[in-house]
Amino acid sequence: MEKMEKVSHPLVGIIMGSDSDLKVMKDAARVLDDFGIPYELTIVSAHRTPERMYNYAKNAEERGIEVIIAGAGGAAHLPGMVASISTLPVIGVPVKGSSLDGLDSLLSIVQMPKGVPVATVAINNAQNAGLLAVQILSVKYKELRDKLREYKEKLQTEVESKAKKLEEIGYEKYGENL
Amino acid sequence: MEKMEKVSHPLVGIIMGSDSDLKVMKDAARVLDDFGIPYELTIVSAHRTPERMYNYAKNAEERGIEVIIAGAGGAAHLPGMVASISTLPVIGVPVKGSSLDGLDSLLSIVQMPKGVPVATVAINNAQNAGLLAVQILSVKYKELRDKLREYKEKLQTEVESKAKKLEEIGYEKYGENL
Amino acid sequence: MEKMEKVSHPLVGIIMGSDSDLKVMKDAARVLDDFGIPYELTIVSAHRTPERMYNYAKNAEERGIEVIIAGAGGAAHLPGMVASISTLPVIGVPVKGSSLDGLDSLLSIVQMPKGVPVATVAINNAQNAGLLAVQILSVKYKELRDKLREYKEKLQTEVESKAKKLEEIGYEKYGENL
Amino acid sequence: MEKMEKVSHPLVGIIMGSDSDLKVMKDAARVLDDFGIPYELTIVSAHRTPERMYNYAKNAEERGIEVIIAGAGGAAHLPGMVASISTLPVIGVPVKGSSLDGLDSLLSIVQMPKGVPVATVAINNAQNAGLLAVQILSVKYKELRDKLREYKEKLQTEVESKAKKLEEIGYEKYGENL
Amino acid sequence: MEKMEKVSHPLVGIIMGSDSDLKVMKDAARVLDDFGIPYELTIVSAHRTPERMYNYAKNAEERGIEVIIAGAGGAAHLPGMVASISTLPVIGVPVKGSSLDGLDSLLSIVQMPKGVPVATVAINNAQNAGLLAVQILSVKYKELRDKLREYKEKLQTEVESKAKKLEEIGYEKYGENL
Amino acid sequence: MEKMEKVSHPLVGIIMGSDSDLKVMKDAARVLDDFGIPYELTIVSAHRTPERMYNYAKNAEERGIEVIIAGAGGAAHLPGMVASISTLPVIGVPVKGSSLDGLDSLLSIVQMPKGVPVATVAINNAQNAGLLAVQILSVKYKELRDKLREYKEKLQTEVESKAKKLEEIGYEKYGENL
Amino acid sequence: MEKMEKVSHPLVGIIMGSDSDLKVMKDAARVLDDFGIPYELTIVSAHRTPERMYNYAKNAEERGIEVIIAGAGGAAHLPGMVASISTLPVIGVPVKGSSLDGLDSLLSIVQMPKGVPVATVAINNAQNAGLLAVQILSVKYKELRDKLREYKEKLQTEVESKAKKLEEIGYEKYGENL
Amino acid sequence: MEKMEKVSHPLVGIIMGSDSDLKVMKDAARVLDDFGIPYELTIVSAHRTPERMYNYAKNAEERGIEVIIAGAGGAAHLPGMVASISTLPVIGVPVKGSSLDGLDSLLSIVQMPKGVPVATVAINNAQNAGLLAVQILSVKYKELRDKLREYKEKLQTEVESKAKKLEEIGYEKYGENL
Repeated sequence: MEKMEKVSHPLVGIIMGSDSDLKVMKDAARVLDDFGIPYELTIVSAHRTPERMYNYAKNAEERGIEVIIAGAGGAAHLPGMVASISTLPVIGVPVKGSSLDGLDSLLSIVQMPKGVPVATVAINNAQNAGLLAVQILSVKYKELRDKLREYKEKLQTEVESKAKKLEEIGYEKYGENL
Repeated sequence: MEKMEKVSHPLVGIIMGSDSDLKVMKDAARVLDDFGIPYELTIVSAHRTPERMYNYAKNAEERGIEVIIAGAGGAAHLPGMVASISTLPVIGVPVKGSSLDGLDSLLSIVQMPKGVPVATVAINNAQNAGLLAVQILSVKYKELRDKLREYKEKLQTEVESKAKKLEEIGYEKYGENL
Repeated sequence: MEKMEKVSHPLVGIIMGSDSDLKVMKDAARVLDDFGIPYELTIVSAHRTPERMYNYAKNAEERGIEVIIAGAGGAAHLPGMVASISTLPVIGVPVKGSSLDGLDSLLSIVQMPKGVPVATVAINNAQNAGLLAVQILSVKYKELRDKLREYKEKLQTEVESKAKKLEEIGYEKYGENL
Repeated sequence: MEKMEKVSHPLVGIIMGSDSDLKVMKDAARVLDDFGIPYELTIVSAHRTPERMYNYAKNAEERGIEVIIAGAGGAAHLPGMVASISTLPVIGVPVKGSSLDGLDSLLSIVQMPKGVPVATVAINNAQNAGLLAVQILSVKYKELRDKLREYKEKLQTEVESKAKKLEEIGYEKYGENL
Repeated sequence: MEKMEKVSHPLVGIIMGSDSDLKVMKDAARVLDDFGIPYELTIVSAHRTPERMYNYAKNAEERGIEVIIAGAGGAAHLPGMVASISTLPVIGVPVKGSSLDGLDSLLSIVQMPKGVPVATVAINNAQNAGLLAVQILSVKYKELRDKLREYKEKLQTEVESKAKKLEEIGYEKYGENL
Repeated sequence: MEKMEKVSHPLVGIIMGSDSDLKVMKDAARVLDDFGIPYELTIVSAHRTPERMYNYAKNAEERGIEVIIAGAGGAAHLPGMVASISTLPVIGVPVKGSSLDGLDSLLSIVQMPKGVPVATVAINNAQNAGLLAVQILSVKYKELRDKLREYKEKLQTEVESKAKKLEEIGYEKYGENL
Repeated sequence: MEKMEKVSHPLVGIIMGSDSDLKVMKDAARVLDDFGIPYELTIVSAHRTPERMYNYAKNAEERGIEVIIAGAGGAAHLPGMVASISTLPVIGVPVKGSSLDGLDSLLSIVQMPKGVPVATVAINNAQNAGLLAVQILSVKYKELRDKLREYKEKLQTEVESKAKKLEEIGYEKYGENL
Repeated sequence: MEKMEKVSHPLVGIIMGSDSDLKVMKDAARVLDDFGIPYELTIVSAHRTPERMYNYAKNAEERGIEVIIAGAGGAAHLPGMVASISTLPVIGVPVKGSSLDGLDSLLSIVQMPKGVPVATVAINNAQNAGLLAVQILSVKYKELRDKLREYKEKLQTEVESKAKKLEEIGYEKYGENL
């Protein structure tokens, strides 16, 4: 079984179409930081840098990248185009633009034709893209499975302690502190 | 002023993501046939042949193509990606897929980010893509302007003769022949 | 590096909310058959068999399952609920129901809250769910990477030969044979 | 005929997927307070605490709960999952999330498959969820029927007195005080 | 505790805006038949028989009706208007019309203002309206609770036996018999 | 008070963008026939005969037309453009096209800017356009008011007799005859 | 020909479901003020005051009202219910609520079934409801036709003078003053 | 080959339905300024100045205009109506209004019937309308082709330098400066 701790190169490539997507996409990076997974993060625009995009997708695998996270908004082609070039699993993050409340981004990313899947997460939910990358890597690096279990337990504990507090002090008081 | 009749190479490139789009996209070809404009028509898939797509877009201009018409459905990336690579005007035809009634195709094509326009026409309306190509070419080849005027007049005459017939025989009788 | 050929238990669990989803979900199974990946396929309904669903999700990992593919329609809760229980990567397939053209299924699956991702593919596109499972497994079983490359090449070759034929015989003749 | 005043345990369970839903869901509690109906209110997340959710739904009936109100946003699975486990009537409140204006929450809750209904109210309208719970309980506890009639009369009186004032002072003046 | 078997008048009123809704609404009647609940079923149009609608809603309670199920399509006002007049719980069934795939019916029924809830079920899902009526009546008539448990068990058993068969004969063979 | 029976010229102009709209728009004519209102019906396309449209709208009033009914589909500009030219009340009928289920037609007609209203009816509901024209004319021709009352009574009687029959023979038998 | 100036009672009834709709609906009143048309304005809620609504609709005609303008939001039943009771032309104003951007209000008002039209205007566009009422009244009161022509000319003059200014000072300067 | 530098009259006509669209439409003008293309910009309302609109469209070609850019919101008829009158290529910019997030504007512009195309760009994206006009003109004025290539290179360089900076200073620091 392979150990991730021995890996010295990025395993996940986080790319986004524009630096304006960073406020959303940083959440993917934070999850990977929390799980101790080496990653790289940069800007790759399908529309403004098509060759950079092509090269990124073409070379990611041989540079040791094992999962790609791609975020984009509007007519969001980055995740699908990277998936058309690379055989790596590609996670798509629909970034909400200034119109249509993210529906355009979502449909442009998720409605891929037969043969070229993009693993799409919720609109603006780059945190889940990070977690999905961890889950995918955990197929190979079993030590991540324990961390994922801990993560799930933490989610659970947080809810339970909030629930306990809410039950104790009542919703009126609890609401004041929100 | 340049004359189109002297042109012996295709001026318009009609491409589509899949041969299943042909039943829609042939209407663009028919318009160009009617206007006597040389064109080429082929299949170029952004998702299944990304390099073919790149090369097509990269070389179209130097091969003498002056307008590109690209049709695709679902997460339709072909028109936008071609527009990201070529400086030629790109007309996008949203082809209705099996879900969402063409809304996914439309939004994937029209909602392009700043810097990379796609001239989008109505869902499944490749005939209008052909006409728009003629209009664009008519900026250069003035003889097309006359043909466009004739085309508009024909549209008008058709409506007027139908209207006349409808007024004469009444809607009940007219409806029987529809 | 682990070899998949030595694996004698299912690596992928394909589940669906109802046997009426089978006409869609079988495409995931066919892809896994093509790639030689052992899988299991059954019916697990979040709404009609919640305990079966809980147990399936809870035990999948220790039974050796490495990826779960879950398809459901309407208020489609199966993929998200399985993802809430298991740490395995879960791929969700929105199955189009009798109303709203699959939009309800899509949003119910993709719009998961922070902490619990579902890797969502296009509406009714179980083939892509199968492929995404292969891509995820290829992180661990490198021999799948070659098969994926072959698969991509086959997609490309198919398009190219269709394009060639279309260019040779023209769209009118080609259209007759569609 | 059973009297509600003799009941000393909660009759309604108000649950929500996250404490961020409290600003919406507190309106259900306020209605129950107004009608003098004992209730409990807590956080139960289908996605982050699936076992807590299962246990809550499984045990609610034997703890004397007669109606469950469940609110959630996005891919909102809580109401439907609770309804899949319990035979109690479940009222679902779609809570508007940060994208898609509540459409995802609404469809995820209302579009339940045959066999497992969720009584869905309007987006963010937990007040109506509270009232619907009162109406359901009034089938058994007839004294609530009178209170509901009073409530309806109060709604009516409020409109009528506002209408009277508006007619008296005119819309310009009335509008200044809004 | 009251026994339903002693009831000799209808407990549920099933109404619909048009006889064209009957193909959908009959499923509510069938569920009530299965549970042995006396009901009445008729046509009451908010738009074409507003007085009949008013009288129906006004008198339902004193005629012994305890739950109303109302189905309508398009700008579907019947459920909401009945709920505005009666204090009984009203279940709304959005019936899909010839346009917009049921979205208009759904929104017209579910988006009720504060003060007047309608318990909305899925588009065309009158079976669930029937079940929800049973669940509501089971608050008072406890013998229905057992039947609901049996119903849930039957749903579960059906899924499990289908799952067993599917696992035994494989999806190819199973699919042939669908 | 003016009498309609003395009118010998058309009072209502029914126009449509294409003869393919006739199958929908004939229902407006039938209503006017039933109410004995003189009308004219023809084809006027905003997009293919803009001058004919301009002239129609400009001259309708002086030709004695008092209400215009205009039906169109897709990017439906006919009703709004006629309303921009004429001061007559214009009723718009959104005709469902081949995509988007009539939503495009509806929004193109109803979302008119301040200053230029179009009285929009439901998608494909030309019968209601006819009725609305009758209602508008009844402001002037009081004899129509009685006919409208009779019409309403007929609607009511039809529902009541259907309801009676349904109650008598039961929904199973009634359903067989639908 | 009847003269409006002799009319001493309201000709238009403006009603709205809630005083929160006043900020939108006052625009209808302002138009009627501008055209010198007597009107009344009040609150009539279909859901909270169904009898008041019934009586308002039932008696409007005999009180001399000739057009009703009704505004409401969400599951907006007021315009349609008034139209079901009265034979007067009813203009519906969809008022945007807190969710779904007015789509629910629009569909609830415009998608009326055959037999009961509502003349629907754009979301929140009560000014157009006022204008449409003027247009409808102008069928009877011809002096309004001249005022409508003046109104159209004023609209035109405003645009032309803005256009002139814009052309003179340029868009940069013009934009500063917006 | 014709040279644009010798042209002394406007080649592009930018029109908009209202001066409130200027904040969006000025971006088209800026692009044309950047490319050194003579243009004119004014207000032309299809609904408030239909004759001005007709004349503008009718005369644009003989005044030397070669491309028209038209922006409008809501039931946006300006681009389509201009396209119905002129044979020039017309670019449509859907301007987002106060409701429905621009969907109404988009559909009103893009869903044109066969025979009358409008080259539609993304909602509020007048910059792309400007660029598309440049691309169309570059068919005739080849010197623009070089400028378009430079423009594409500038887009690319900007992304690359941002990417470089992001990679150097890391996303945390980069995010602070956004």
